[in-house]
Amino acid sequence: MAPAEPNALAFRPKGEPPVFEEERKGWKGYIEWEKYPEKKKRAAEVLKQYDFPVPPEFQLQPLPKSNPILTGERWKQYHYAMGPSLEKVPDISWEYVKKEKAADMLHVLQFPYNGESPRERLVETEITPNDTFFIRNHGGVPEIDPQEYTLDIFGLVKNPKRLTLADLQNEELFPRQTNTVTLQCSGTRRLEQIGVYPGDGDELINAPWAEGAIGNAVWTGVSLKKVIKHCGGLIDGADNLEFYGADTYFKKGQAMNYVVSVPWRKVKANEVLLAWEMNGEPLPKIHGFPLRTVVFGYIGARSCKWLYQIKGIRGPSQAPVGKQNAMYSNGFSIQDMPVSSAIMSPADMDQIVHDGQVKLKGWAYSGGGRWPVRVEVSGDGGSVWYEVPPENMSTKYFHGWRLWEIDMPVDAEGWLEFCVRCWDNALNTQPTFVRSAWNWDLHVTSSCHRVKIYSMNRSKPMTAQRLKLLEEKGMSILPITRPLEIDLETDEHYDQAMEAMGGRDPKE
Amino acid sequence: MAPAEPNALAFRPKGEPPVFEEERKGWKGYIEWEKYPEKKKRAAEVLKQYDFPVPPEFQLQPLPKSNPILTGERWKQYHYAMGPSLEKVPDISWEYVKKEKAADMLHVLQFPYNGESPRERLVETEITPNDTFFIRNHGGVPEIDPQEYTLDIFGLVKNPKRLTLADLQNEELFPRQTNTVTLQCSGTRRLEQIGVYPGDGDELINAPWAEGAIGNAVWTGVSLKKVIKHCGGLIDGADNLEFYGADTYFKKGQAMNYVVSVPWRKVKANEVLLAWEMNGEPLPKIHGFPLRTVVFGYIGARSCKWLYQIKGIRGPSQAPVGKQNAMYSNGFSIQDMPVSSAIMSPADMDQIVHDGQVKLKGWAYSGGGRWPVRVEVSGDGGSVWYEVPPENMSTKYFHGWRLWEIDMPVDAEGWLEFCVRCWDNALNTQPTFVRSAWNWDLHVTSSCHRVKIYSMNRSKPMTAQRLKLLEEKGMSILPITRPLEIDLETDEHYDQAMEAMGGRDPKE
Repeated sequence: MAPAEPNALAFRPKGEPPVFEEERKGWKGYIEWEKYPEKKKRAAEVLKQYDFPVPPEFQLQPLPKSNPILTGERWKQYHYAMGPSLEKVPDISWEYVKKEKAADMLHVLQFPYNGESPRERLVETEITPNDTFFIRNHGGVPEIDPQEYTLDIFGLVKNPKRLTLADLQNEELFPRQTNTVTLQCSGTRRLEQIGVYPGDGDELINAPWAEGAIGNAVWTGVSLKKVIKHCGGLIDGADNLEFYGADTYFKKGQAMNYVVSVPWRKVKANEVLLAWEMNGEPLPKIHGFPLRTVVFGYIGARSCKWLYQIKGIRGPSQAPVGKQNAMYSNGFSIQDMPVSSAIMSPADMDQIVHDGQVKLKGWAYSGGGRWPVRVEVSGDGGSVWYEVPPENMSTKYFHGWRLWEIDMPVDAEGWLEFCVRCWDNALNTQPTFVRSAWNWDLHVTSSCHRVKIYSMNRSKPMTAQRLKLLEEKGMSILPITRPLEIDLETDEHYDQAMEAMGGRDPKE
Repeated sequence: MAPAEPNALAFRPKGEPPVFEEERKGWKGYIEWEKYPEKKKRAAEVLKQYDFPVPPEFQLQPLPKSNPILTGERWKQYHYAMGPSLEKVPDISWEYVKKEKAADMLHVLQFPYNGESPRERLVETEITPNDTFFIRNHGGVPEIDPQEYTLDIFGLVKNPKRLTLADLQNEELFPRQTNTVTLQCSGTRRLEQIGVYPGDGDELINAPWAEGAIGNAVWTGVSLKKVIKHCGGLIDGADNLEFYGADTYFKKGQAMNYVVSVPWRKVKANEVLLAWEMNGEPLPKIHGFPLRTVVFGYIGARSCKWLYQIKGIRGPSQAPVGKQNAMYSNGFSIQDMPVSSAIMSPADMDQIVHDGQVKLKGWAYSGGGRWPVRVEVSGDGGSVWYEVPPENMSTKYFHGWRLWEIDMPVDAEGWLEFCVRCWDNALNTQPTFVRSAWNWDLHVTSSCHRVKIYSMNRSKPMTAQRLKLLEEKGMSILPITRPLEIDLETDEHYDQAMEAMGGRDPKE
């Protein structure tokens, strides 16, 4: 078995590199695998020649402190092995990260690109800017000329059609629809689960996300319902729609396109958008240009980027995942996101001097068309809760998050556990502890988000005195693990104090 | 401020190195600081010239995976700064580690030497061999010629005396005493507290101990009570005895000898031994040769090594420690050790295949003259407890630990928390969670020891089937975080299973 990343050997092609022609003019880095079984077969043969590096161990061991945290050597090598049409995709994709995303993104995985919003900026604006919006890609970025772009609707639809971008944008054919919708990776806050127990291995690296794999944007496009109606509707008992992305995905030695499905009943509710605009701008390349789906209230994975075809099918699309300890049929499918929230400020392990209250800021969200109605915070690990004043919560949307802030009373000193819970309009709330909601898949971490805070309350006279002393001497109290170079009391004070409490030893 | 270890700059002496003459023939690496205020003053002046490296941060960040884990650059540099009589002590001390201790010791701190017994060997024998017995030194190893050795008894004693080793070993003067006594560093299991919350900084590095800073040995020597009686007893209200070790200790810019005290009432109970033999052999150099105290049931720190004088005093010895957030008079003195226990096998994060029961092995101890009467283990984090059969517990001593083992029934699969608690003869038992007993000092970690275990129960048919499949294919299930390269079910099985549960989506 090859060594784990990042000690993976450099990729060395074996024999003549395979040639997988790009099918379409103006579409780069896109191979159509799904229509050509012989291509899939050839790709599997090529992949079998290699001993690809195994994924790095990051659950049983501490995460590297680098940025990118993980580099994705194995995924890059899958692409290198595919020959000229895909071998440059990892580099091209990284160029788009540098071009389209903020410099302070937290790069959780370099390739396929998984990036988290900069922590301190995530809750500054109700609408997340395009350059800081999180990304969880499953493959590289295909480059598609919008003039050459078409979308095929086929399968169990009455009148299969090929539509251009101009067709979709023709308001005489389709009314335009704009919605504020939060997208969330089901892996958000996975780190909290890993911190308690590692998960079973997944074929695709499950990125070690913190609380930033969520964002809220204004999306413009057409409702998929109208497009299906335009094709005469579904036929023969079709009840799901399958989306195909132009990116290449790899699983268990097979090359494939990215494929997911949503039920027709979700589409019928006008909750699936074919979107070309994100926050009033054309979709960035790395976010699925020229067209993607946006599925309201669902796991982000259904919001297929670089969408090139939609197929009417009966029953949901299959995407079995091999686990060490679970058959896929043991599990259930993730669609709606559960109620969740996070404290984005202060950060875990912060050591805070305050005067009896601490400002907390964060986000709250509930999927499936539910919305946050109340947010509560606790300074004692989940016993006493304070309600965030309703006026400190941002706009209510059917499918959007709410930002919140509160000045929470904090009396106690030393290490405290701050936590947050959200109640949605169906009165769902969050389990108190990670263990209560831990699952082998490490998805949908929905327990109360917790941060450990070292509290120094200056409204306490002895603390005020100590802080003043340190200030006078120009010494820092941080980090609190450092020894103090001075004594906080004189020998005389010590003797008096000990005598006052009856000495160290009891009386005979 | 100097950089934190291990990026500390190499030590460069400033000006002419100081000369602190070794006082006594046959005593190397020993400076008498306590009798000579002018020496102490000079040492303080020398120390003030330097910008010593700060201790490494190991509480807010993961511990290095090296062995030694920490090297103690700052403490070494203190010694280098003292000139010819101490500058070689760090190297000499390390040579004794290599000569006297087992090759597989866990070196928690290279200098002053802090070493933990090899985990897997600690609970093999009721009596801990000398070469694996833990060590928590506070300075370097002084080399003392036993022929030149003397012990001074002075202070508030009626007839101060100087005794040779031959005097102490003269059975006509003093009856010989042999006891089985467990010594324990009060820092044992500190890692569990750090894992939850870091502590405040201490001047001396508080080593990141796991469960191996404890050991049980047979000690031979004389009772200190008899020696004090030989000197005519204590006078003038003296109620404590102060021990002086020949090692050099540094605190807040001062050089000093290692000094601690115990109450006379402890001595009167014949629970303080002046020992020259450990497990039937002369004390190893690194364990205090030629003479040390062994204080039964107390924190190991009172069992002073390289003992060279004993002073009768009124009230306990002072040893104030500067903390970021605490005055010494806020705290209380650690003497008796609380009831505690640990699971030494399996180890935390082990992934275990079993047939419905798992063997657990460990130690249990209670200080202050109490002893373990019962040990209980839990496979569910502390709800249901199983008693260790009394016949599976080692010999009962007034001052010794007990080893134990049990085949614990384990039904559940996935991540479980195994934990242990001990009840002593005073019916003390351990708090269930670390948080319940966490303290800023990170001493006496006494909550139930916990290990996280991934359970795979082969007595479950589906698990047996999965393990058989992997075995046939020559594949390992470990580590469980690795993706499985095969599917555990066919597409047909998946389809059947999903149909059997009514499909993925509900009915209209």
